[in-house]
Amino acid sequence: MPSTRRNVTSVAIRLNQERGSFWLVDCGEGTQQQMLSSPLKPRQLEKLFITHLHGDHLFGLPGLLGSRAFQGGQTPLVIYGPKGLSEFVETTLRVSDTHLTYDIEVCEIDEGIVFEDDQFVVSSRKLSHGVLSFGYRFEESPSAGRLNTEKLAQEGIAEGPIYGQLKKGHDVALPDGRVLSAEDYVSAPIPGRKIVILGDTTPCEAVTQLAAGADVLVHEATYAAFDSDKARAHHHSTAVDAATAARDAGVGALILTHVSARYDEVGLAHLLDDAQTVFPNTFLATDHWSIAVPRS
Amino acid sequence: MPSTRRNVTSVAIRLNQERGSFWLVDCGEGTQQQMLSSPLKPRQLEKLFITHLHGDHLFGLPGLLGSRAFQGGQTPLVIYGPKGLSEFVETTLRVSDTHLTYDIEVCEIDEGIVFEDDQFVVSSRKLSHGVLSFGYRFEESPSAGRLNTEKLAQEGIAEGPIYGQLKKGHDVALPDGRVLSAEDYVSAPIPGRKIVILGDTTPCEAVTQLAAGADVLVHEATYAAFDSDKARAHHHSTAVDAATAARDAGVGALILTHVSARYDEVGLAHLLDDAQTVFPNTFLATDHWSIAVPRS
Ligand SMILES: [Zn+2]
Ligand SMILES: [Zn+2]
Repeated sequence: MPSTRRNVTSVAIRLNQERGSFWLVDCGEGTQQQMLSSPLKPRQLEKLFITHLHGDHLFGLPGLLGSRAFQGGQTPLVIYGPKGLSEFVETTLRVSDTHLTYDIEVCEIDEGIVFEDDQFVVSSRKLSHGVLSFGYRFEESPSAGRLNTEKLAQEGIAEGPIYGQLKKGHDVALPDGRVLSAEDYVSAPIPGRKIVILGDTTPCEAVTQLAAGADVLVHEATYAAFDSDKARAHHHSTAVDAATAARDAGVGALILTHVSARYDEVGLAHLLDDAQTVFPNTFLATDHWSIAVPRS
Repeated sequence: MPSTRRNVTSVAIRLNQERGSFWLVDCGEGTQQQMLSSPLKPRQLEKLFITHLHGDHLFGLPGLLGSRAFQGGQTPLVIYGPKGLSEFVETTLRVSDTHLTYDIEVCEIDEGIVFEDDQFVVSSRKLSHGVLSFGYRFEESPSAGRLNTEKLAQEGIAEGPIYGQLKKGHDVALPDGRVLSAEDYVSAPIPGRKIVILGDTTPCEAVTQLAAGADVLVHEATYAAFDSDKARAHHHSTAVDAATAARDAGVGALILTHVSARYDEVGLAHLLDDAQTVFPNTFLATDHWSIAVPRS
């Protein structure tokens, strides 16, 4: 349920500048309207990951697809999600006579690797929510280590093709007979960032396994700890459930989303406080809130 | 397309107090969110009329249905609209595993009388919009004329069952032989209010016929008069088209809706001004704007 203070769910991942695009996880009703007062443009949307097909995560999708066409989107769009997503997209676009100006591909996924290129690997796990609900792990490829140019200069090796060879990890034989070992001049690869964004779920092992060692975990916290009976009854988590999973998975930061409209300002403050007692580096997301995830 | 200044389409008709409910014409994405900051409660929604199946008039429907259930709506809901509406509702609710707590009936309509009870008659006409698009005419039943109790008292006729008989239009024979003719004591019936709300359309005869003599006509004005080539190309109307139809149909007031996001404040002022030159009693609706329609 949306409220005047908080809309239904959608989370954007803004990718490295080079890619010039963003990805979206879930697309509740009103996502395109929220996007209007954000830096995100529908035509820059490259991939959309749907965690589960409940309306508060899905019903903004046909409108966003239509507006992306209306605004002149041309690049292909891939949409990942549970079985049933194809029928939803096909029916809503056909019945509404919506004609897209770009190609879409709908991939109904299972557990495992969802997408992979030389920059990212995206994998998924099934969670526990009464209906099929996925969590997604977005893992950036490690980047090459830093070349120690000071050391090279000290040893009289001038800038040139040799630098590129070393950076790629190749050892280089010099005309004077010396052999430069790449590992002496290049630091260890810099690990890529890891972001895990979950669909709705009640606590389960898949959460901590999927989130293991992530920089950031985005976890639902529909209920406060004192409403844990309600959380169990409706296949949801409390803020403390989320914090416990974050601690067990050893993540860097926890972001709570999907908080029920039943809690007022004071209730939300307590909810966050309870979570921080278990996992201190916890944030409560609000509409348009964002967090930077720097490379470590 | 929604904008930060204006959401997509939905128009509410708040009915007489006695009925304690409201009707909605169209349900674009975000209608339930807009409703949160209005006096309207989804559980009081009784009937929903969809003019046509374009997304900006339709994509808020499944979310509103779900939230009406979530908020404890119990009373049945009837939804009227073009062919294809049943499939849209059935698919979106089934795929999203949305379970309603009340009965819905989806009526795919044609031209003619859509609904009738002792308070209202709703009829529809096909407009001209490239896809099947309806206009709806909401006509309130006339109410009985006023009984002239002063005249009755002057003639020595005491309050009692005779008053009721006269008010119902029955002539009454008195014990003293006099015959009271109802029409001498009861004024003419008070006409009911007539509201006409159109789907998107380019100018056509059905508009003026459906709107004839209405108290209020709600008409799209997607474009300003100087963009009439665009209006024709996209099966839409300009503000001046709407004003011309209002004048020809002899309505009481014209309300312009569905104005393109391309016009800024100044553009909107000109657009309204152009319409008022043709039909002075014209209003430009904005989100949450409302107008009272008193009985004449
Ligand atoms: Zn859910
Ligand atoms: Zn339309």
